[in-house]
Parts: sequence; C-alpha cells; structure tokens
Amino acid sequence: MSRFWSARVHDLVPYVPGEQPKTRDLVKLNTNECPYPPSPHVAGAVAEAAGSLRLYPDPASTALREAAARANGLSPEQVFVGNGSDEVLAHSFQALLKQDRPLLFPDITYSFYPVYCGLYDIAFQTVPLDEGFAVRVEDYRQPCGAIILPNPNAPTGTPLPLREIERLLREHPDVPVVVDEAYVAFGAESAAPLIRHHPNLLVVRTLSKSHALAGLRVGFALGDPALIEALVRVKDSFNSYPIDRLAEAAAIAALDDRAWFDHTVGRIRADRERLRAGLEGLGFRVLPSDANFLFASHPDRDGAALQAALRAEGVLVRHFNKERIAGFLRITVGTTAECDRLLGALRRILRPT
Amino acid sequence: MSRFWSARVHDLVPYVPGEQPKTRDLVKLNTNECPYPPSPHVAGAVAEAAGSLRLYPDPASTALREAAARANGLSPEQVFVGNGSDEVLAHSFQALLKQDRPLLFPDITYSFYPVYCGLYDIAFQTVPLDEGFAVRVEDYRQPCGAIILPNPNAPTGTPLPLREIERLLREHPDVPVVVDEAYVAFGAESAAPLIRHHPNLLVVRTLSKSHALAGLRVGFALGDPALIEALVRVKDSFNSYPIDRLAEAAAIAALDDRAWFDHTVGRIRADRERLRAGLEGLGFRVLPSDANFLFASHPDRDGAALQAALRAEGVLVRHFNKERIAGFLRITVGTTAECDRLLGALRRILRPT
Repeated sequence: MSRFWSARVHDLVPYVPGEQPKTRDLVKLNTNECPYPPSPHVAGAVAEAAGSLRLYPDPASTALREAAARANGLSPEQVFVGNGSDEVLAHSFQALLKQDRPLLFPDITYSFYPVYCGLYDIAFQTVPLDEGFAVRVEDYRQPCGAIILPNPNAPTGTPLPLREIERLLREHPDVPVVVDEAYVAFGAESAAPLIRHHPNLLVVRTLSKSHALAGLRVGFALGDPALIEALVRVKDSFNSYPIDRLAEAAAIAALDDRAWFDHTVGRIRADRERLRAGLEGLGFRVLPSDANFLFASHPDRDGAALQAALRAEGVLVRHFNKERIAGFLRITVGTTAECDRLLGALRRILRPT
Repeated sequence: MSRFWSARVHDLVPYVPGEQPKTRDLVKLNTNECPYPPSPHVAGAVAEAAGSLRLYPDPASTALREAAARANGLSPEQVFVGNGSDEVLAHSFQALLKQDRPLLFPDITYSFYPVYCGLYDIAFQTVPLDEGFAVRVEDYRQPCGAIILPNPNAPTGTPLPLREIERLLREHPDVPVVVDEAYVAFGAESAAPLIRHHPNLLVVRTLSKSHALAGLRVGFALGDPALIEALVRVKDSFNSYPIDRLAEAAAIAALDDRAWFDHTVGRIRADRERLRAGLEGLGFRVLPSDANFLFASHPDRDGAALQAALRAEGVLVRHFNKERIAGFLRITVGTTAECDRLLGALRRILRPT
C-alpha cells in the first residue's frame, strides 16, 4: 500500500503462477511444461540471432507471423504474436472482451481470466460447468458482451467438440468469442478452420506446452484481420517490440519443425493414457482430458493433503483451493519415468496405515 | 474499425517506431541503436540458457533483478524488470502515473507518453521546453497528479543537472515522479542515488542503447519498494513471465560486464563530439546532448526534405513532423565511419547548386 499508487492497483488480485523451484531434484508436474526438449533446430536459430542483438527486432514480427500462418493454413494478416499467450490474452481482454455487457467464462477455468477483468475493469459473469465438469454451450444463452473459454478447458483438461464450438459461434454472432487453445495440440479439435466463416472468433495459442518453449514466452492469436487489428493497436500503444530477436528466431524454428512437434505430442498422449490407467488403478477419479495434464481426485483423500504428501516425496503437482475442485490435483504428464515416480509416491501415500 | 472492438480501441493513436529496413546496405542512424556489439559474454550466456527452454523462467526474474541492483548499488527489492523499458513505462503509467489530477510531461519529449495516456485514459498536460529546448523545473509548479520526464530528454538529448531533478522532487513530494533514463549512460547524471531520500521517485532504464541490446527487450525501474510493488502487482495481473530465459541470461551477462559497457559508452561519446563538430562545420544548429544522438537543424533547409535527401543517399535519420521541431533531425551516433558517411552525404546535399 502506498499513497503513490494509482487507484486500481489497490484492488488488484494478481495471478499466482505454479511454483518454479530452485532445486533440481524435484519431479516437476505442476506447471504443464513439456518433459521433452524443443526442436533441435531451436539452438542453432538462437545462436545465429544472438549475432544481431544490438539492433531492434522487427516490430511487426513478420517472419514469425508468417511461420504461424504456414503452420495453420492461414495468412499473416490473420495472426497476432505476443510475449507468451498471457500477453496475447491480456491484450484480447483490453481490445475485444471489454464490452458494455458482461463477459462470460466458465466458473472452473484458467484463473487468470478474472485477474485480467480486474486489471481492465471488465464486468464478468461465470457460467458453471455441468456436474461432469464439462462446458455446456446452451448455458451461454444469456445476454453478454463477449465469451472466452479454453478448449480443452483448464484445469480440467476436458475438450469441447468442434461442432459445439461452432454452435456457440452460431448462437453468438454479435459478440467476440475467444477460444484459448493453449492445450489443443494434445488431442482436441482446433477452431482455427472456423475463422473463415466467423469474423467474431479469436483463437489463442502458445508455444509453451506443445512446442516445449515455456521458457521462451511466445504465444499467438488467429482470427479475422479486423480482430487482429484491434490487438495490434493495443500492442502498438503498449510496447512496439514485444518479441525479441532470440524469441522470434527460436519460435520460427520450432513452428517449422512439424515432425518434432508430432513426435513429442504423440509421446505425451501415450504417456497420458498410461498415467490415467495408473491413477484409476489407485482409485482416482480422472476427468476426460485432451491436454498434457490430468485432473484427478481421490474419494478418500483431501486434495491439499495429497499435494503436500507428494511434495514431501519430491513430486510437485498443482492444487487449486477453490470451490468444486478443492479435492482435485492437476498433474502434468511428464516423462514415462516421471509418471512412474508419481504413481510410486501415490502408492506409498495411499497405502493403508 | 470493427463492431467487435472494445470502445477504447477506436480512439487509440498508436506509437510509430523508427523504420527497421529489410535491406542491409543502409547507414542506420534512425533508432538510437548502439553501433557496437554487446558484451562478448552475452552469446555464451544465451547458448547456455537455450538448453532449458522447455521450463518456464523465474516469474520474479530474481537473478536479473540482483544484477541490476549490483550495477546500481541498490537492493533487488528496489528493482523491477520488464520486456523493454517500453513495457516498464506502460506499467508505470497504469500503476503510478494515473492519478486524479493530470500528469505533466514536456511538450517535446518521448512521443510514447501521450500514447500510454490514451491507452490508460490518463489526463495529461504538457509543459513547454524553454526557448533553448531545455526543461525548466519551475514550470512544473502547478497542480498535478504525477510527473514524467526523460533525462537526457528525447529527442533533444539535452540533460537536466542532478540538482534540478532534486529540486523537482523537493517541490513535488506528494506525487510520483518518473525519470526516464534511457540515455543516461552517455554523460548525464543518474537520479538513482536520490531514491533513498525520495520514496516518490522511479528511475527507468533500458539495456537497448548503452548495453547494445535493443534486440533483446530488457528494461528496468529503480525505486522505493512500495513503488516497485505497484509495478509487480500490475505485471502479475498482465503476464506472469515477461522476461524469457534467454533475455534474462543475456541481460545479466551484459550488466556484469562493466568494462565493456564503459569502453562502448566512451567510444560513442568521443564520436558524438566529432559528429557535433562536423555538423556545426556544415552550418547546423546542434542542441547540447548527453545522449547517443544529436538533435540538429539547418538554417536553410527543411527537416523533412533533409531526411528524404539523406535516405536517397542511403542514410536513415529520424524526423518528427511536430510543432517546434519540424526543422530538426535526430541523428544517432554511429561508428566513426558511419558518422563520416553521414557528413559526406550532407556535404553533397548542402552543396550550392
């Protein structure tokens, strides 16, 4: 608290990211990072770009937008890039989701959404997931100024079929609809092909998970050029050069290496199903997931207590102390060995004493 | 224009950065980049950090804040870091400079300031520089909610002595005062030592110019921990991880290489004085400058026409089509050879025909 703060600062309730431990001997299944390294082309691209750091980057990140367009069968005018999808989302909230009527998003979802609403003074209304923790499109039939939802949803991992996204768009043609596809690569259907017919649709992506570049901070948005222009106007009023030369070069290398991407995603999907079977074998309820994590609860154990017990065993997972989901753990799909360490630790913790 | 835009987007007048040409044969004296490379330790630091890109960075950028604190004789609690000083400034406008009374800044100054005011709906009042294009502290004796000014000022390059900054702080103890020191390393006195006695002072810096890292996008703010906390609260409501792993490692390497920094800054200062003499020899009026650029006008020539003629000669400089300064060119101090190419081009352009 300080008398020098702007009024809004006093009321902010900032987002709290998952723990980034300083020690290396922990099994880190708490922040949905990729357990495998990024494309081997990334290191060379970074080394080359390091030779021109004295010069500003391209403020429009043209080459990176072209790479993202190539990877998604779109044109560069349909692409906006930012310093992580968190920055892309922030600009989307300010540029598109702040409307006269309230913004709608699920009650259980990415916990940064209400934080952005606080930062930009956006009225919002949450829409409860159904009893199976799934989004029900018909529940969004209410007066609203905009809609945002992740697909698959977080932290549940549960996907919404493309035909349901399409129904949502058909039912809300007059408001911006943002589909946050941070985890889409792990099995869900992308809404990107719908952009052509829905000028109100913005699809947000990140290279943090499926491209193994959480440490790089590159995300992008796909949508009609008029939506992209709104984001560019805000970006050019905030920071002319959000993507540094190293990040741009690394991101292009990763986006262009489709084979590495497919291989990595395939391994994680296979391990996810092994992990699911292991957890269910230990009595967990595991929600359907098309993400690189599972959301699971145990009938006999408290979520926070399980998280603490796992930490004592050297395994980090994420727990949200929040209504409806306090019993759940969000567990990132690690390497096969990491998943086995988690299951071994849980076996010890759950053993009758 | 689109019906899906938030209301504010329609009124934004974004900042326009200097041209970043795609061709390499131009002499680039238009965006105040450093003509020499960054510390030779940067490349190694980047290569090492490239090995851990699958993991998120430290959201608090602790090691980088420690390096900036070391370089400035402060503690990490007095340091905030961001994705270029433009992001640091943006957060400062939102977190500190938005007050009930208007923000004051010079009429001739960094042209991003009114853009931030547009983005965050901040009322402002400009204070004219004196007839010699210098800031006069007594002109700020008026009701205001906050003050921001660059030292040296941009695009003039003219410094304000430390005792004048101190007087400004003494006369305005109840409002936030931001001193934007993007160019301070080239000869002006930093206000950082005043932080101890002035809890309302925020000093903003960048590694883009004096550390030759424009392509990296790292800037920071120095101030009382309560001011820093306001910036952290906004940052954690906007993007948890604004500094990627490569940028953090490179910035630390550059900040710790004091000898390289001193050597680079020394060369630029020497070339600045040679360039000044050359310009004055051609009849230019050159404002006093403690920056890595000169602001100069010719009694017989129009600024825009001179800029266009220089471009035709393969030399880029910056011109601002703005009241009071339309006759001036802002010329970055390049290498000795680049400065000579500029002077040669001007000699040809100014030759009586």
